[in-house]
Amino acid sequence: MATHKLLLLAGDGIGPEVMAEVKRVAAWLDQAGLASFAIEEDLVGGCAYDAHGAAISEDAMARAKAADAVLLGAVGGPKWASVPYEARPEAGLLRLRKDLQLFANLRPAICYPALADASSLKREVVEGLDILIVRELTGGVYFGEPKTIIDLGNGQKRAIDTQVYDTYEIERIAAVAFELARTRRNKVTSSEKHNVMKSGVLWKDVVTALHERAYKDVELEHNLADSLAMQLVRWPKQYDVIVTDNLFGDILSDIAAMLTGSLGMLPSASLGAADPATGKRAALYEPVHGSAPDIAGKGIANPIAMIGSLAMALRYSFNQGDVADRIDQAIAGVLASGKRTGDIAGPGTQTIGTQDMGKAIVAEL
Amino acid sequence: MATHKLLLLAGDGIGPEVMAEVKRVAAWLDQAGLASFAIEEDLVGGCAYDAHGAAISEDAMARAKAADAVLLGAVGGPKWASVPYEARPEAGLLRLRKDLQLFANLRPAICYPALADASSLKREVVEGLDILIVRELTGGVYFGEPKTIIDLGNGQKRAIDTQVYDTYEIERIAAVAFELARTRRNKVTSSEKHNVMKSGVLWKDVVTALHERAYKDVELEHNLADSLAMQLVRWPKQYDVIVTDNLFGDILSDIAAMLTGSLGMLPSASLGAADPATGKRAALYEPVHGSAPDIAGKGIANPIAMIGSLAMALRYSFNQGDVADRIDQAIAGVLASGKRTGDIAGPGTQTIGTQDMGKAIVAEL
Ligand SMILES: CC(C)[C@H](C(=O)O)[C@@H](O)C(=O)O
Ligand SMILES: CC(C)[C@H](C(=O)O)[C@@H](O)C(=O)O
Repeated sequence: MATHKLLLLAGDGIGPEVMAEVKRVAAWLDQAGLASFAIEEDLVGGCAYDAHGAAISEDAMARAKAADAVLLGAVGGPKWASVPYEARPEAGLLRLRKDLQLFANLRPAICYPALADASSLKREVVEGLDILIVRELTGGVYFGEPKTIIDLGNGQKRAIDTQVYDTYEIERIAAVAFELARTRRNKVTSSEKHNVMKSGVLWKDVVTALHERAYKDVELEHNLADSLAMQLVRWPKQYDVIVTDNLFGDILSDIAAMLTGSLGMLPSASLGAADPATGKRAALYEPVHGSAPDIAGKGIANPIAMIGSLAMALRYSFNQGDVADRIDQAIAGVLASGKRTGDIAGPGTQTIGTQDMGKAIVAEL
Repeated sequence: MATHKLLLLAGDGIGPEVMAEVKRVAAWLDQAGLASFAIEEDLVGGCAYDAHGAAISEDAMARAKAADAVLLGAVGGPKWASVPYEARPEAGLLRLRKDLQLFANLRPAICYPALADASSLKREVVEGLDILIVRELTGGVYFGEPKTIIDLGNGQKRAIDTQVYDTYEIERIAAVAFELARTRRNKVTSSEKHNVMKSGVLWKDVVTALHERAYKDVELEHNLADSLAMQLVRWPKQYDVIVTDNLFGDILSDIAAMLTGSLGMLPSASLGAADPATGKRAALYEPVHGSAPDIAGKGIANPIAMIGSLAMALRYSFNQGDVADRIDQAIAGVLASGKRTGDIAGPGTQTIGTQDMGKAIVAEL
C-alpha cells in the first residue's frame, strides 16, 4: 500500500485542537491497515509569524510542495491584528494557494438530516441540501496587481485592488465545475456581475463558450452574484454546482455553509491541475470554518470538518474513496447516537468535547 | 406648501406597473392637500435604449438634475442581454448614481410582523428585524479605471476591473452611517476584506479614525464581508447599521432584504451630499427588488416597495415625515386586513393584484 505524505499545518485558534483529532483518526487508519501515512507538521499563520516573522516559512513551503496533500486547520485571530500586511496570518494561506497553484476550491454545503434543526432556516428549506461551490482560488482581486495604498498628501490616501481574469483561468475552473456536475445532478450555475464588471462579462462569455464546445449535456444557467446570494437564502435546493470567482466564491460559499446549520461539519478541498505524466495534483484540505479564537483552547471545538478534510484527501488525492466513505459513515453514526459538540447540540443530544468527539469517531470506525 | 419636483423613471419589467401606483398615491396626497407634487416622467434602462439607443438620454439626465427627487422603478431584463456594454440597461442607473453623486445608499431591511412567515428563515430569527445597510454607491469596483477587456492573442483575453477608494469617500459614507446610528440603536458594523484587500485596509483605518475623532458615543465593530454574510444568515438581529463598500453592499443588502421575507416591501434611498447653502441634496428612491421580467405585465407585482419609496422621499428629501408615517401606516393597515399580492400571500390571506393593492392603500389613507 502506498504511503501518503501528509503535511499537517494546524495553524491558529482551534486549529491545533481539531488537527489533534485528525492525527487520532490517521493513526487508527494506519494501525488498521486501511491507509498508510507519513506525517509531517509545520506552522502557518499567526503562530508561524510568532516563530519566524513570516506567515509561512520557506521550509514549510518546501515541505508543502513535497507532500502528497496538505491539511490545514485555520489561520488568524485578533492577536495578529496589527502585524505588517505582508506577514498577516492569511498571507500564509494565500501563499500556499498561489505557489501550489490550487486554483480549484471545492466547498460542499451539505445539510445533515440530524442537524437540519440547527440551521436558522426552516427545515423544509435546507433538509437534504447538497450543493457544491466551485470557487476560483488563485486569481481575481485576491492577487491582481496593482494592489497598493498611495499617499496623496493632504491626509488623503488611495487604496487600489485589481480584479483580473484571463480566459484560461476561467476556462479551467469552469471545466472542473462541469466535470463535477456530471457526477452529481448535472447542473451548473455560473455567477458574476457582468452588469457592472468587465471580468463578469468575460467570465460569462468563456463559461458559455466552453459549455457550447464541450459540456452541452450539462445544464448551465447564469445568475448575478447579488441575485444568487438572495436565492441561496430563499430556496437553495434549486442549485447543484455553483462556479464563481475568488471573491464572490468567498462570500457565497460561506453563506451556503451557514445555511446548512452544519458549519463545523464542512471540509473543503483546494486542488491544482493534474500533472499529465503522473496524474498527481497539488492539494490542500481544510475546514470551511475559521480559527474561532473565542473558543480556542477550551477543548469544545467541533473536529468533524477537520476529520472530514482527511476523508476528502483520501477521496480526491489518494483514490481511497472506500476509506473516505468509512470515515463519513463513522461521523454519521456518531451523530445518530446523539453525541454532539456544543455548536451542533440540540434538544435531547449529549454534548461532548473535541477529544471525545475524535474518540467517538474512532470507536465507530 | 412647497411643490416637490418629482421625476418618475419607471424603467423596465414591472417598473411601469408599480410606478402607476405611486402616481395614484401621489395624486391622492395632492388632492388631500397633504403634499404638492409637480411630476415629470421619462425613460431609463432597456426602454430608453429602445427609444434612444442609450440607457438614459441627456434630456432625462438634465431633468433628473433639475428634480427635487427621482423615483426609479427597475431596469434590465433578458430582452437587452446582448446590447453593447455601454448601453446596457444598468448603465442608465449607474450614470444617475455617478452624475448626481448619490454616494450614500440606504437600504433598510425590516421584517414586517405580518410577513415573518414568508421568510425562509425561522420566525424567531427574523421577527422584529430592523437593520439598515449603508452602502457606498459611487466608488469602488463599479467605477474604478482601468475597466476593460484586452485581447492577448491566441484566443486569450484579459478582463480587468479596478477597486479604488480614497480616504474622503470612505469618510463621508462612514459619517452617514454614524449619524444614522445615533437616531437608531447606536451601533455601526463596518465590513470589508482587509485580510486580502488593500481597500479593506484603508476602509478599516479610515472608519476607525473617524469613529475615534467624532463618534465615540456610537458602538463600532468590524466584520469581514464573508463573515458578515454568514452572520446575517445566522442571527441578523445582532446588527443595527452596517456600512460597507459598493460591491459588498450590493450583495449584503440583497441578503438582508431576502431574510425579511418582504423583498417586495423594501424601498431604498440614494443620497448626495447636502448643499451647504441650500441644504438641498440630490436624491433617488427605488425599490430593492428588480425588474422581475418573469411577472412583468401581468398586473400581479407588489407595488408596496415603490410606494414606500415615495414615503422615503417625503421623509428624507421633503421633510414631511408625518406624511411618510401616514403612508407607512396605510401600508401596515392593508397588510393587517389580510390583503396581499402573490409574493407575500400566506394561509388565510386574500391575494390581490398591483392596482388593487394601490387602491387599497389609498382607501386606507
Ligand atoms: C482567511 C481568508 C484569507 C480566506 C479567504 O478570504 O479566502 C477565508 O475567508 C476563506 O474563505 O478561505
Ligand atoms: C442593477 C444593478 C446595476 C444594481 C447594482 O449592482 O448596484 C442592483 O443590483 C442594485 O443593487 O441596485
